[in-house]
Amino acid sequence: MGGNIFFDRKGPFSPNILFPNLQTKKKIKILDIKNLKDAGINDLTFLDNVNYIYLAKSTKAPYCLTTEKLKAFLPSTCMPILVKNVLFELCKVTKKLYPNAEIDIPDKTLKAPKKMSFLKVKFGNNVLIGKKCKIGKNTFIGSNTIVENNVSIGDNCVVGSQVVLRNSIIGNGVVIQDGCKIGLKGFGFIPLKGKNLRFPHIGRVLIKDNVEIGANCTIDRGSLDDTVIGENTFLDNQVHVAHNTKIGNNCMIAGQVGFAGSSKIGDGVSIGGQAGVSGHLKVGNNVKIGGGSGVIKDIKDGNVVMGYPAVPIRDFIKNSKK
Amino acid sequence: MGGNIFFDRKGPFSPNILFPNLQTKKKIKILDIKNLKDAGINDLTFLDNVNYIYLAKSTKAPYCLTTEKLKAFLPSTCMPILVKNVLFELCKVTKKLYPNAEIDIPDKTLKAPKKMSFLKVKFGNNVLIGKKCKIGKNTFIGSNTIVENNVSIGDNCVVGSQVVLRNSIIGNGVVIQDGCKIGLKGFGFIPLKGKNLRFPHIGRVLIKDNVEIGANCTIDRGSLDDTVIGENTFLDNQVHVAHNTKIGNNCMIAGQVGFAGSSKIGDGVSIGGQAGVSGHLKVGNNVKIGGGSGVIKDIKDGNVVMGYPAVPIRDFIKNSKK
Amino acid sequence: MGGNIFFDRKGPFSPNILFPNLQTKKKIKILDIKNLKDAGINDLTFLDNVNYIYLAKSTKAPYCLTTEKLKAFLPSTCMPILVKNVLFELCKVTKKLYPNAEIDIPDKTLKAPKKMSFLKVKFGNNVLIGKKCKIGKNTFIGSNTIVENNVSIGDNCVVGSQVVLRNSIIGNGVVIQDGCKIGLKGFGFIPLKGKNLRFPHIGRVLIKDNVEIGANCTIDRGSLDDTVIGENTFLDNQVHVAHNTKIGNNCMIAGQVGFAGSSKIGDGVSIGGQAGVSGHLKVGNNVKIGGGSGVIKDIKDGNVVMGYPAVPIRDFIKNSKK
Repeated sequence: MGGNIFFDRKGPFSPNILFPNLQTKKKIKILDIKNLKDAGINDLTFLDNVNYIYLAKSTKAPYCLTTEKLKAFLPSTCMPILVKNVLFELCKVTKKLYPNAEIDIPDKTLKAPKKMSFLKVKFGNNVLIGKKCKIGKNTFIGSNTIVENNVSIGDNCVVGSQVVLRNSIIGNGVVIQDGCKIGLKGFGFIPLKGKNLRFPHIGRVLIKDNVEIGANCTIDRGSLDDTVIGENTFLDNQVHVAHNTKIGNNCMIAGQVGFAGSSKIGDGVSIGGQAGVSGHLKVGNNVKIGGGSGVIKDIKDGNVVMGYPAVPIRDFIKNSKK
Repeated sequence: MGGNIFFDRKGPFSPNILFPNLQTKKKIKILDIKNLKDAGINDLTFLDNVNYIYLAKSTKAPYCLTTEKLKAFLPSTCMPILVKNVLFELCKVTKKLYPNAEIDIPDKTLKAPKKMSFLKVKFGNNVLIGKKCKIGKNTFIGSNTIVENNVSIGDNCVVGSQVVLRNSIIGNGVVIQDGCKIGLKGFGFIPLKGKNLRFPHIGRVLIKDNVEIGANCTIDRGSLDDTVIGENTFLDNQVHVAHNTKIGNNCMIAGQVGFAGSSKIGDGVSIGGQAGVSGHLKVGNNVKIGGGSGVIKDIKDGNVVMGYPAVPIRDFIKNSKK
Repeated sequence: MGGNIFFDRKGPFSPNILFPNLQTKKKIKILDIKNLKDAGINDLTFLDNVNYIYLAKSTKAPYCLTTEKLKAFLPSTCMPILVKNVLFELCKVTKKLYPNAEIDIPDKTLKAPKKMSFLKVKFGNNVLIGKKCKIGKNTFIGSNTIVENNVSIGDNCVVGSQVVLRNSIIGNGVVIQDGCKIGLKGFGFIPLKGKNLRFPHIGRVLIKDNVEIGANCTIDRGSLDDTVIGENTFLDNQVHVAHNTKIGNNCMIAGQVGFAGSSKIGDGVSIGGQAGVSGHLKVGNNVKIGGGSGVIKDIKDGNVVMGYPAVPIRDFIKNSKK
């Protein structure tokens, strides 16, 4: 994700400071926390699932939170840090690096925009802008809308009224209708009786060129990764996009559709109203998903599915006629 | 729809100006664009679907966008304008007449309401009103609510807080709860790789007397037609009503129901929570639709249906017991 | 519910004033209206359903709205007031005691918060607070948020931007994300052609300690009872909680879930995205409900269900493979 402009990071830390039980003389300090693929030579990574073994062998990370069972899949350059519950320990260590990403404290730098700073931008009434925001030329920002610190919006965009934008990078020609809440912390936590442990969300929302987002949609930012809406993809009203979801280019997502998080949707996908896509799935290119469907497994390129659980359209019609 | 008070119309245009490839000496200019039924003797209409042949023969329009296959169904008074893709050409010509109906630019005329102009209206804090709005007596408008230009609201209404109203005509005794977004552009476009072609939305939202709309609902305005909520119909929270939907009188629509557009719902219909109604359907009077149902075909008067796809309630219970 | 701080109550009334057709010399005046269990020696109660007979015999109420069929289940200390339609008469008499609970008129006491009154509270911009609100220390209230009169918020809470809170009592450590509408009147009315009769909502929303509510959720207050979200329960975005719903402690409710009203959800329950729970059900402790499910009957402790209608997970998988 490059440098994180939205969250202050503490450290770097010696591994012995972050993990006091760890006995190591390895001196590389931990600068950041990233997934197996994106981690660099100063980052901590994690491996908690056999599905990601294929990424493990080429990780550049010097340290990896993992389990006794999975440690054998790491390269010799990567030291395993053995724990029982990877996500629990990952959550705790991420909080140490990013103590402000756990709860969305409202931005205290919000002010009415200074005309001098945004010469070619048109603002409605009572707009509030945080520090270090960038807004491109010929962009409109509607009344009562809030753009929090460091958000970037491209040229020729229209942001409606009563919108909240935070932790987001928005391209050119994007339309965001009234009432959307974009870039908030997602629904990620370790359930603990009495007081759940919230997972810090240090990812962003990336909205690419020519996207349209309907009214009252919610798009959560990623946890360690980004949430992405691809170019020229249109979302209808009241769509919910959970953390880390990646939607491709040229998709059509109808009203009240929900994405449960970390799924990857291809290009040219169309999804009918009120359909739901479970978490951690892969939906191929040019897939069509009927309205009201519940997708609970991967779908290959070009397939047309419908139903709950979603099945090929032929089977759905056959079953409905029984 | 009578004169359009919400959108400036260009023209009238000679047909040769709008369609340069057309070779005609017919001199009637095109004033507006309307459906087969509503079109008058100076309007362009369109016929793209065999379902509407029955309306074609009595249209008053002098010109009709249609295909080689369908042209035979037009009366001799109506000149066919032959195209391959009717909706694509309709979209392009509508943009020429209504260049400002394609994207909802926030209203630049919004101001705090002048007490002199609204003597018997009660306003909360930070209300914003566009020019030429009408608001009836004993109506309340809640704090942070935005009423855009030319919207009309009747007597004895209660509009909650953080609402947006545009392109809407609202009757007497209507209650609109907090957070609703009403009258926005709907989800209509011609998908094109790289940059979709948006369909201009020149219709309105008509909300009749004694309607109640729950919190955070979205009701899109019509494209060439109006979206209508009939008298004494109550909508619960988070309902989504897409463009051109017409809901009758005395209906009960529970929470999170979605209407996919252009459907016609009769009088006295009750719909349970999270049900969905596909586009272009006809649901009769006094129909009952169970919660969570997915309606994908027409339903006759008085029927009770449930399921996905929705079937008569007897069949649903029988199937569930298998 | 103790004294009602949110709604002014008229009376007390002699029973002959409230029910002119009643011929009684009983002199106990009616102070309030409560359910069979909570009613005290000066309250009117009601019995309209055989399911509640078990509560009838121990009611302390001196008067009970009921039918000819059900009157035999009342104790001798409780005088039956016989009617044909209990809910219709209950609605009418509740309006007499609480004439302002039928429609949510926006709070006319809203003002910018005085720093002197909220010394250890941090406010964003354009916050509006009604009279007699209590807000605990180290609590943040985001920009453009509205907190109506008498609402109480505990310590260490974070309320996001563009939120509306009314008729609610909120504990400590609660997080409410942007765009939520909490404490509004629910979807309760007696359908009447031409003009429905709205049921007054004199209940509250109680949000217990360490709860998190996602963006754009709607939680309606109770009608005669309270709506409750238990300790350490987390709701994702766009969840709809209808009136009188009671959710236990340590629950996880994913995005776009809907509760239809008056259901009681146990502790430790997890519900997947877009699931729906019908009204007046009892869901036990530690139940798991799969995403997209439609729950239409009670579920016992520890059960795992999925489907529409929801069935034990084994049966769902078996049926899906057919």
